[in-house]
Amino acid sequence: MRLLEDLQWRYATKKMNGTSVDQEKIDKIIEAARLAPTSSGLQPFRIIEIKNAELKAKIQPIAFGQTQITDSSHLLVFAAYDEYSTERIERSFKQQEVERNLPAGFADDYKNMLIASFNSKTKEEHFDHAARQAYIAFGLAIAAAAELKVDSTPMEGFNNSQLDELLGLAQLGLRSVTILALGNRDEQQDWLVSLKKVRVLKDEFVIQLN
Amino acid sequence: MRLLEDLQWRYATKKMNGTSVDQEKIDKIIEAARLAPTSSGLQPFRIIEIKNAELKAKIQPIAFGQTQITDSSHLLVFAAYDEYSTERIERSFKQQEVERNLPAGFADDYKNMLIASFNSKTKEEHFDHAARQAYIAFGLAIAAAAELKVDSTPMEGFNNSQLDELLGLAQLGLRSVTILALGNRDEQQDWLVSLKKVRVLKDEFVIQLN
Repeated sequence: MRLLEDLQWRYATKKMNGTSVDQEKIDKIIEAARLAPTSSGLQPFRIIEIKNAELKAKIQPIAFGQTQITDSSHLLVFAAYDEYSTERIERSFKQQEVERNLPAGFADDYKNMLIASFNSKTKEEHFDHAARQAYIAFGLAIAAAAELKVDSTPMEGFNNSQLDELLGLAQLGLRSVTILALGNRDEQQDWLVSLKKVRVLKDEFVIQLN
Repeated sequence: MRLLEDLQWRYATKKMNGTSVDQEKIDKIIEAARLAPTSSGLQPFRIIEIKNAELKAKIQPIAFGQTQITDSSHLLVFAAYDEYSTERIERSFKQQEVERNLPAGFADDYKNMLIASFNSKTKEEHFDHAARQAYIAFGLAIAAAAELKVDSTPMEGFNNSQLDELLGLAQLGLRSVTILALGNRDEQQDWLVSLKKVRVLKDEFVIQLN
């Protein structure tokens, strides 16, 4: 099974060699994230694509000096909505109506329930919910990279507010969640590349109630 | 590209037909989740696999009566750690040492930093972090189902604490996060099956800083 083979092939690359990945492959990785399912189809996150070397150099200290930041070809910053505003929800439903040729207001009951539900929650709860959706897409981007034999490093280890500040994310109504560094492994210098993939055993991972 | 084709094929199935999915396929879907990358490799979640009809019937009212709960073949409940206890972290590092034939204490500095970091956080913060990791695996399980042409419905719409209570998750140190219903679509009665997949356009989804 292809996905399982890809997941066995990938690993969190610890040292990249600074070479480039074709933009066509980067676009496909992003496309996997764009197609990811999200709660009510709201897609409450965006991807910031970075290949500029100077910008990557500025991000490195924010990410505790990790070398993959500068040795990668591209960085994808997954950034989630700081809130599910009524305007954002309205816009998403409007797009669905238009693209599906549905009568205006077709899903108003559901939409209004959703808006009321979010209005009863804090902005922090909005962001937490949006961030979780971004993780679905993050996983699919990692799988897409593996299918294309592009190495990747999933990263949570960075100062989120400093990265938001550097990238001007607050003005876009976004907050950074994760970074996916994409590039090519430096086989000689990567301490993890030859180590066995370790996972909790299936018997412990699954609890069957059958 | 196979993953992109699979993601185009899948949709959040709204009506399933009650037929069974081979256990072999279910096992592969779970395997994709087991292989998912997680922060520091801690895999802070488990999957509860349910095919028992009586149990599914008890879950349905907890999930607002959604028919996929009982018309599915299997339900996979993704449940995250209620806390990253020192014991859980120690155990994960121990397994890595053993399976990789590394000297005991090889990664103690990193491990101790991690333990100290979690000890400075609340249990709710632990759970939120663990839940996010579960979403990576949730996405990969959805992709695996699509590769196998198994229909699935990703679900967040249920009462988490009631489900935790019903499944006895607190005793396992777990809290429910999502449900993935797996089964076969009822093509005649599924209102979503023939509707266009709608996603935010790429130009809006990606912000390029190049």
